[in-house]
Formats: sequence, structure tokens, C-alpha cells
Amino acid sequence: MLAEVADKEFAEQQLQDVTEALARGMYVQARRLLHNLPAWDVALLLESSPPKARAIIWQLVDADEHGDILEELSEEVQKSVIRQMAPEKLAAATEGMDTDDLAYVLRGLPEPVYQEVLKSMDEQDRHRAEKALSYEDETAGSMMNTDTITLRPDVTIDVVLRYLRLKGELPEATDKLYVVSRDDQFIGEVSISRLVTVDPTKLVSEVMESEVQGIPVDMNETEVAKLFERQDWISAPVVDAENHLLGRITIDDVVDIIREEAQHSMLSMAGLDDDEDTFAPVLKSTRRRSIWLGVNLVTALLAAAVSSMFEDILAQMAILAILNTIVPSMGGIAGSQTLTLVIRGMALGHIGPSNQRWLIGKELAIGALNGVIWAFLIGAVVAAWKQDLVIGGIIAFAMMANLLAAGLAGVTVPLILKRFNIDPALAGGVILTTVTDVVGIFAFLGTATLLLG
Amino acid sequence: MLAEVADKEFAEQQLQDVTEALARGMYVQARRLLHNLPAWDVALLLESSPPKARAIIWQLVDADEHGDILEELSEEVQKSVIRQMAPEKLAAATEGMDTDDLAYVLRGLPEPVYQEVLKSMDEQDRHRAEKALSYEDETAGSMMNTDTITLRPDVTIDVVLRYLRLKGELPEATDKLYVVSRDDQFIGEVSISRLVTVDPTKLVSEVMESEVQGIPVDMNETEVAKLFERQDWISAPVVDAENHLLGRITIDDVVDIIREEAQHSMLSMAGLDDDEDTFAPVLKSTRRRSIWLGVNLVTALLAAAVSSMFEDILAQMAILAILNTIVPSMGGIAGSQTLTLVIRGMALGHIGPSNQRWLIGKELAIGALNGVIWAFLIGAVVAAWKQDLVIGGIIAFAMMANLLAAGLAGVTVPLILKRFNIDPALAGGVILTTVTDVVGIFAFLGTATLLLG
Repeated sequence: MLAEVADKEFAEQQLQDVTEALARGMYVQARRLLHNLPAWDVALLLESSPPKARAIIWQLVDADEHGDILEELSEEVQKSVIRQMAPEKLAAATEGMDTDDLAYVLRGLPEPVYQEVLKSMDEQDRHRAEKALSYEDETAGSMMNTDTITLRPDVTIDVVLRYLRLKGELPEATDKLYVVSRDDQFIGEVSISRLVTVDPTKLVSEVMESEVQGIPVDMNETEVAKLFERQDWISAPVVDAENHLLGRITIDDVVDIIREEAQHSMLSMAGLDDDEDTFAPVLKSTRRRSIWLGVNLVTALLAAAVSSMFEDILAQMAILAILNTIVPSMGGIAGSQTLTLVIRGMALGHIGPSNQRWLIGKELAIGALNGVIWAFLIGAVVAAWKQDLVIGGIIAFAMMANLLAAGLAGVTVPLILKRFNIDPALAGGVILTTVTDVVGIFAFLGTATLLLG
Repeated sequence: MLAEVADKEFAEQQLQDVTEALARGMYVQARRLLHNLPAWDVALLLESSPPKARAIIWQLVDADEHGDILEELSEEVQKSVIRQMAPEKLAAATEGMDTDDLAYVLRGLPEPVYQEVLKSMDEQDRHRAEKALSYEDETAGSMMNTDTITLRPDVTIDVVLRYLRLKGELPEATDKLYVVSRDDQFIGEVSISRLVTVDPTKLVSEVMESEVQGIPVDMNETEVAKLFERQDWISAPVVDAENHLLGRITIDDVVDIIREEAQHSMLSMAGLDDDEDTFAPVLKSTRRRSIWLGVNLVTALLAAAVSSMFEDILAQMAILAILNTIVPSMGGIAGSQTLTLVIRGMALGHIGPSNQRWLIGKELAIGALNGVIWAFLIGAVVAAWKQDLVIGGIIAFAMMANLLAAGLAGVTVPLILKRFNIDPALAGGVILTTVTDVVGIFAFLGTATLLLG
């Protein structure tokens, strides 16, 4: 750990210097500056660079640093960087990587490259890599490291302390040592802070915490993150179905998951991929985003088709065409507010069978209350603007109806999607606005047709 | 730590049992069940309950547990629960709380209650509370605990180990001991894992890491969280301007900040408050959400006013009214995608002066490419549907123009807002959709007026 805290401005200055040197084509200077940057900062620079600059920076960085930098990159950027590396260089870069990071990197490779990288590794590393890859992605197994320190229950703390002194150094974020039986079954743990506070003549079995269960290796990473948050863990053991100790998960990997999960909803709601790279090439980004635009075009055409049912009245009164967008728009906003809260509530585990009905009631009540407020306001504005009380009344009624529909849809759409195992953050917004568009247009133009047609 | 990992279903079952007991009015049974639940689960239950059930649960929980549960609650729910507590009970509940949690609870109190709570505390606690409250909210000072263990540089590790054994227990998440000079200046740190691996006859000054700087007490919590993520810290020392050690920040508090920050953008984009409580009373929620609806009403009226400029052509051709919503809708979606990516990129520190221009170019290119694709598609659909090539051409042109505008606005709106220190997540969406609505309507109805009017 360097003296970096107060040197934030210094770090920013350095980053800027590199950027400038690169922009001016002063590659020798850029290389020297990059050499002095910590891996984390180089990763930040790569994440913030357009594809061409990214390639140049990667060429200029010391090959020794490649592994450390790869570990800090997001999946998408990592892939774009790895694509330019020769398999044997990649194999060299992964040497000494934490098991979970190694698996992460290897998972991103196309099959032939992956095979070549494996071939270029020495036997021990290859074995470790194959083991790491045998666990499913996004499970405890794919998050864990194998750098555990294990103890036998029948030795004294004094022996443990002597063993640790011989070892000389502990892996990062080691707050606990794990106690295993002769056949590697996990039977308990001893925290390091306990190690330094207990009587050293005691046996490990006397001071260990044995009421602990390991995390099952196939547990989903979201569940793992929830457990860490709930228990305020710094590290936790991972076990297989027979309770054999396989490795441990540390809080730094959990923090990454927590950030990703929290970002996931926001990105999904805009129809974006979790790994969307801000500086991806144009063609790639266009392709990814066009799916969502296509879905939206269908719903927009659906709304137009609904309006089209009222072509007669629209042909008679242009004022209806002008006001036709207001009610759907307000319904969309009100519905999205409810939807966003429900999606967050579901992610936090706050919404379940016991309170769904209450929540629907609440959102309907808000819809009704907001309906009255905004119906009155828009009715008054329109009546004053167009000097037409009837149209004011019609739009007020439509607003009321649509805000009620928005509240109801805002709660029920995500609940229904979840029951069908569809991510509400991804599909919820489109379905919701389709509902509020259709209800809004029907209520407004339908009533107008009845009263004025 | 209990055997909870594999008992997730058991915990869920318990939560359900409490809920059922409460629903049936079996309060004695509910009280017994609550008694056996860990504080974290009771907090989850409170967060997931409507106001009335919340009040009942709080009455049934053991008073001893109040402090632990309060620590786990979100600000909004905490406030709603505290409101029903007598000041002396509240004072009792805060006894033994971590300093940062104590400050968090006290900050939420109305002034008179706060004074009474302070009066009900014993002198030591009062002093601690006043000290904790003297630091500004959302800074390192408000996040820190004062449970540091400090060492002098001139003692041997052996002496330290004996001192720790006398102490018998270390505070949670203690991975480092801090070395201070005689006047409490922070001069270095010794990790516990170093403590157990070095030769015990060495002096603290010989084994300590002295290249470390403490976190300044007034550093913003977002910066603190970034430092923790960047350095993979588990805890870090906090110092004042004269480098005196004031306390330490632990990773569990940082995880809370990271989750909050990541959620912030999503909630802000829907015009919701960070602390929005899913189960808040109807009136409160209505009031909060109505601000956003009001803003949207103004922009919807603005769009209607723009359409109103083209009343003549709308009166002539109802088909234009029917198709008028498609182009603004597509622009809104495309713009939101760009906006969401830029907001995330800004939060991660990926977007700065060096790459803004590139990013604008990229999003304009995507807008142009998407513009061509969707202009062609919508033009073809409309031409086929309405058997009118001219209108197909007009909507195709409008689509092209609006998707370009959406890309440009998606990048520039958040950049401009940030320059004026306005949160882009909060205001960006409204401004963006106003742009895409206005451009979309102008391009479509304006061209139609020119060609057909």
C-alpha cells in the first residue's frame, strides 16, 4: 500500500500526463509514465479509452504487469485486450493469478485460444486452471480462491503460531484459518484475532468456532453476496457436498458482485447489457442497442394502431391529436416510479407473498390520489387553454384512469414477470409503458368518441 | 456466527411464521418467534412491513435488541420506528452502539428528542455521541468507529501479543493495529497477519508499515468507498488535519455506501429519493412522487404546445396524428440508453475531458447508423400500412434526425449538467426526453407541413 490517499490529485495528474503523451504520440514518455502507474490506474485508463488508444496502451505496458491489470478490468474490456495477445503471453500473464481471476480470464477466451493457453502453462498451473473452470460461472466455486490456510484440530495454538512464522506471510484478506479433519472435511475456523488473544497452550479444537457451515460450492453468487452483507464477513470457507474444504471467498470479490448487481437493474431498465463497455466500437454498440429499439418500435406501432382506431374523431378535431400524448406520458412516469421501487424491493428481498396485496393497495391509493390531483390540474389547464370544458373533463377522466392503471401495472407487471422467471428490470419497462400507452389512448380518445363523436 | 448458511430456507420459514402469527393476531407466539430471530432478520421483516405491522413488531421485540436492529435499518424505516420510542428508551438502545451507527441514529432525530436522548445518556456515552456528531454527515468522520487498538513504536511484538492476550478480544473486522506517537499522531500500522508471522523479539517500529497515510476525516464517503475498492482494504485509519488518529473505517460500512451509490442512479432516474421506503404511508409517497409528475406534466404540455404549432396540418390529415408519437418514442429510448451509459461511466470515473469528444463522435455515429436502420424500417412499414410513400419518407427522415439528436443529447446533457453541479441521474432523463420529443415532433410535423401543407 503506497502513500496514495492524499495523493489522489497526484494520481489524476499522472493519468492526464499519460493521456497527453499518448495523444501527442510521445510513446517513449508514455511508456515510462505507465511503468510508474499502479495496475489499478492503468486499468482505469484502459476502461476510459477508445479501442485504438486501448491497443496502444496495452502494447506500452510492461508484460510483467499484464496479469495484475487484467484482474482489474471489466469483462468486456478484458476481452478486447486479450484478443490482441499471443496465447503464450497470455499464459505467462496468468501465472500467479488468484484462482478466481484466472478462471474469469480463461472463461472469456474463444475455445482454440483457450486450448493454446492451457498448453503453454506449466503442469501445476494447468491443473489449477482446469479445476477452477470445472465450477459453474456465477457460483461460489467461480468466486473462490484456493489460498486457504488449514489447521488440524489436535495441535496447540503455539504450534500454529510457530508454523505461521515459518510461513512468513499470509494471503491477502486472511482473517480466519480453517480447521479440517484428516480427510479434508471442514470442521471449524479460528479467527486470527482469536489466535493472538487466546492462551497459546490451548488446542485448536478448544478455541475453534465449530458452529460454522461452509458456503456450498454451487451457491449462486447473489446469495453469497447477501450472506456476506448479512453477516459482515471478510472471508468465508467454500465446501463441496461432502463438506470438504475447497477454498475461500473474500470480501473484495463480493464487493464487485454487489456493485454489479446494483448496476444491473439500472442498465437492464434501459435495455443495456451489464457488461456494456462505454467505449466499445460503434458497430458492436449499435447492434446491441438495436434489439431494444426494435422492441420499442413494435410497442410504438401498437400505440399508433390504437390511435388509428379513433381516426374518425382525430380527423374531426385536431385538438385531440395535440393532447393525445399527455396522458400516456404521465402514466408512463407514474408507472416507472412504482416499477423502479418494486424492482429494488424485490432485489433487496423486501417483497413477498405476505405484503404483495398491501403493496398493490398502496400503489392503487397513490394512483387514485395522484389521479385526482393531476386530473384536476390538467383539466383546468386544458379547459383554460382551449376554452373547452368538455375536453378538459375528458382529459381529466383519462388521466385519472391511466394513473390508476399505472399504479396497478407498476406492481403487478414485475410480480408476474418474476413468477415466469423473466427479469423484471429487463422486460418490465416496455410492458408497463405499453399498458400505460394503450390505457391512456383508449381512455382519452375513447371517451372523446363517446361524448363528441 | 450461527449455522445459517445452509439454513436459508429455515430462516425464510421463520420469517413467514412470524408474519402469519402477526396476521392472525397471535402476538404471544409472534413475540416468542421474534425473540429467536437474529437482528438482521428482524430488520428485514420491519423493512418489508406496512406501517401498522411495523409498529406492532417493534412493540413485540425485546428492548435489548432495539439497538442491534436499529443499526441494520435503512434511514427512512429507522426514522419511522424511532418516532414511537420514548427518549430514555432510545438512549438505552444506543448504549454500546458503534460510534458511526450512534451518529447515524442521532442525526435522524428531531432536535427536542435528540436533546432528551442526550440527557438520558450517561456522561461517557454523551461525550462519545457529541464527538461523533461533530463530524459532517457523509464524510469519513461520520463513517468511522473509535474502536481502534493502538501501539507504541518502541515495544516488541512479544509485548504486543501479551497485551492482546490480556485484552482477550478484538473489535470486529480488526485486521490492523495502528502505531501512534506519544501525542497520538498516526505513524504506521501493523497487520494482524504480520503480527503472527514475524519474529516476536522485533520492535513494532521495525515491522510496521510506515508508508501509509490515514484517510482525512473530512473526505467524502464516495471517495472513501473508491479508495477501499481500489486498495482492497478491510479497514483503514482516519486522521485529522494534524495527522492525529481519530478512528477507523471498516469494510462493512463501505459496502453499504457502495450499494447505496449504485442504487442512487437508478432511483434518481425515476425521480425517486434514495431513502424511498417501499412501504411508506400513502400520503408521504404521493407527495414525494408528485414533484416528478409535475415536472413531467410541464414537459408533456411543452410537447403538446409544439404539436399545436402544426394544428393546420393535423386538422387536414389524421394519419399524422396517429404516427406522431412513434418518432419521439424511439428518440426517447435511444437517448436514454446513451444517457444511462454516460451516467454510469461518470460514476465510475471513466469519462473526462480527454475522451468526451470521442464519446460524442461515437454516439453520433451510433445515432446515424441506428437512424438509417430504423428510418428505413419505419418508412417501409408506414408506406405499406398507409399506402403512402410520401408519409413513409417523412417519418423516415424524422426518425433519422431524432436518433441523431438523441445520441448527441444523451452525451451532452449529462456533461453539461455535471458542469453546473446538477445530478445528471436526477435531471438528465427529463431534459433528454424533452429534447427528443421536441425534435421528433418538429422533424415529423414540420416536414409534413412543408411537403403536404
